[in-house]
Amino acid sequence: VTLTGSAEMGIFDNDNPAQNVQFHTDIDVTFTLSGETDNGLTFGANIDLDESIGDNNDDDGLGESAATRDDSQHGGAVIFISGNFGTLTMGDTDGALDWALQEVLFNSGSLQDNEEHGGYNGNAGLDGDYDGQILRYDNTFGAFGVAVSAEISDADVANDDPILGLGLTYDLDLGGTAIGFGLGYQTRDDDEAIGLSIDAAFANGFAAGISYEDQEISGNAAASYDHVGIGVGYTTGAISLHANYGKFDFDNGSETDGFGLTAGYDLGGGASIQFGYGSTDAPGTAGDLDTFSLGVAMSF
Amino acid sequence: VTLTGSAEMGIFDNDNPAQNVQFHTDIDVTFTLSGETDNGLTFGANIDLDESIGDNNDDDGLGESAATRDDSQHGGAVIFISGNFGTLTMGDTDGALDWALQEVLFNSGSLQDNEEHGGYNGNAGLDGDYDGQILRYDNTFGAFGVAVSAEISDADVANDDPILGLGLTYDLDLGGTAIGFGLGYQTRDDDEAIGLSIDAAFANGFAAGISYEDQEISGNAAASYDHVGIGVGYTTGAISLHANYGKFDFDNGSETDGFGLTAGYDLGGGASIQFGYGSTDAPGTAGDLDTFSLGVAMSF
Amino acid sequence: VTLTGSAEMGIFDNDNPAQNVQFHTDIDVTFTLSGETDNGLTFGANIDLDESIGDNNDDDGLGESAATRDDSQHGGAVIFISGNFGTLTMGDTDGALDWALQEVLFNSGSLQDNEEHGGYNGNAGLDGDYDGQILRYDNTFGAFGVAVSAEISDADVANDDPILGLGLTYDLDLGGTAIGFGLGYQTRDDDEAIGLSIDAAFANGFAAGISYEDQEISGNAAASYDHVGIGVGYTTGAISLHANYGKFDFDNGSETDGFGLTAGYDLGGGASIQFGYGSTDAPGTAGDLDTFSLGVAMSF
Repeated sequence: VTLTGSAEMGIFDNDNPAQNVQFHTDIDVTFTLSGETDNGLTFGANIDLDESIGDNNDDDGLGESAATRDDSQHGGAVIFISGNFGTLTMGDTDGALDWALQEVLFNSGSLQDNEEHGGYNGNAGLDGDYDGQILRYDNTFGAFGVAVSAEISDADVANDDPILGLGLTYDLDLGGTAIGFGLGYQTRDDDEAIGLSIDAAFANGFAAGISYEDQEISGNAAASYDHVGIGVGYTTGAISLHANYGKFDFDNGSETDGFGLTAGYDLGGGASIQFGYGSTDAPGTAGDLDTFSLGVAMSF
Repeated sequence: VTLTGSAEMGIFDNDNPAQNVQFHTDIDVTFTLSGETDNGLTFGANIDLDESIGDNNDDDGLGESAATRDDSQHGGAVIFISGNFGTLTMGDTDGALDWALQEVLFNSGSLQDNEEHGGYNGNAGLDGDYDGQILRYDNTFGAFGVAVSAEISDADVANDDPILGLGLTYDLDLGGTAIGFGLGYQTRDDDEAIGLSIDAAFANGFAAGISYEDQEISGNAAASYDHVGIGVGYTTGAISLHANYGKFDFDNGSETDGFGLTAGYDLGGGASIQFGYGSTDAPGTAGDLDTFSLGVAMSF
Repeated sequence: VTLTGSAEMGIFDNDNPAQNVQFHTDIDVTFTLSGETDNGLTFGANIDLDESIGDNNDDDGLGESAATRDDSQHGGAVIFISGNFGTLTMGDTDGALDWALQEVLFNSGSLQDNEEHGGYNGNAGLDGDYDGQILRYDNTFGAFGVAVSAEISDADVANDDPILGLGLTYDLDLGGTAIGFGLGYQTRDDDEAIGLSIDAAFANGFAAGISYEDQEISGNAAASYDHVGIGVGYTTGAISLHANYGKFDFDNGSETDGFGLTAGYDLGGGASIQFGYGSTDAPGTAGDLDTFSLGVAMSF
């Protein structure tokens, strides 16, 4: 059992007229468990202190989820077993679509994750439509990677087919420029999601990526969308910069887009100064929603 | 402060018509604290991460127990001080009856504890009739062991006598066969519980045990019962097997019995494959309740 | 990430006619995170397991605070960065008034903090009038110490000025007798608090202190008061003793006073026997409220 930790202190504003600029503090500790069987399989698990164990706010914000007691909920835990056959992971982990696609975030991030604005898509696909307790198998064959995943309905009800996913990745090295391709697909009854990403890391410190996801939820145009996201990053010495833009085109005709910016300065030893800015233009709101955060992020 | 951990991944079914076969994930970390005084007393405590500190679901499932703040609740903690005089333990620990009796479980267990079916009795006696915060003294004199325990009512109400317990154990070695005897008694006002267990571990990998408990709760025939449980285990190489049967004869005339099976395969390094099956025949239900689980259990 | 721990076992009585003398158990583990930047700044953070992370009982006792998720709440965490410029601390930490004043407690303490009776004042000043998430800068210049602090209102409402504080300390060494002076001031809109403390540690094992605080809450005479507290301590070999007296004179004419006693015996290795007694004379109650606790406290 090994421990790692993180902490943050700073200020932020979330553009809420009922709130002032506020102090930001955050801390977490991660427990990493690892072992090896007699015939060389590795196995392990991890859990964060703030999950410990099962987010008590998980279900309804009033009473508590029973995740602590209920092993049919992931409770924030990730457990795996790995060997020549590949890796089998269960718990609070990515489905195959999310696993395959590269998010368009680069570099330092920010205290309030402002770069993940309302037009940003983490490409989770159908993950979490049930309880988010996912089983994924993944493996690599040279430059190719493949994953399959399943999330099952605990309740025996109508339309309770498992969410099945398939993900493919391919890594290409063009003389110092590393290019990654990701393709993912998920389906459950009449719902489906398909996504694609391409990202590149250049030798001069630049990085860039684009992702596309098309999600169709049967009979729910407001939850069905096309999304495109693009992002760039640049690192030079202690300084890191990032910008991204993303846009949802919902099937009901509405659109939400936004952009995010981060800037970081690495103090060394695990500490860095982080600035983040996010702006969202959502339908039905006057003006944009602009948020920022600034402070020190520490890792231990 | 030392850390140990456990994790499980697998599938289970609990024979609930409203539920499917489900994924199972579980994880925990135990904090063990230990020290020694100048004159050689040892002392220590332990707490699990998932208790941390005080199960928030403890009292009513809606709001929270105040166990985290309320030192009049054990909150999952066990604290002890030990020396030539014996060991004094306080907190979430066994009363003297449970301490003395050997449960009829052997070997690997299962992810969902399916072997602890509805006819199974852990021989807790009157433990937990108040808040489960127990003080126990135990000591050994050669092959004899003795324990006394108390659990007190925090509330000053009628019939709030402490739950007092006495436990005796005796270990016998018959040329490679280790035999254990346990006898326990608890009382509180007009309630009482008495229990007895005998278990044997044979040199060839077999183990077997039987336990009996008679519990009389004044004016509550549905909570008063005789119980008998028998169990066997066998270990050979990496394989371990277990079966147990138990039956409650309630004073109101109803009966509940059931059996449990486990099979385990030790992968080494702390990992093992575990299968469990449990079947319960309870009054007023059509057919048996059959549950199973299968997966990998890991210790770190 | 380093771990330290504490545990307690014993008995206590809180003079509540609806309750008996009760068992006391307590345990906690502290996670300490520390690092150093390339240019020699030190930084770190700490959190207790029982906070982990954000006391779920924090806001209303029924549902949960969102402290776990909400970085605008301190959630029990303390985070700092320190260098030649001084130390900047944010989170669940003291404002400048509390930082400057020495409490009149000495020596071992007790399991139930009985010495902090109803007439006792921890000199928190205006800390916590908002969400208790405090930013403090402090530094030392030879024997002088200085701190400034701010606590801001997350909500943008009327009378939401920050709580600002200033604290000054001075340490004097009179040939083996260490004398400390503390002076603190806090203000927010029309509210203010001012406090003063003097304490002395004598070479023969005696210690003594006095503190004074005047707190004026605009339009709330029941929360406005003058308070005086005095305390003494004595340590010889393994034995430590303490007594304190304190009195609130509220602006509405009522008074609350009380005294506290502790006695400790150090067993070595981190364990000690602790006894505590507290007595409070509050307006509107017949007789005094007398509490005690007795048991073993352990540190790891």
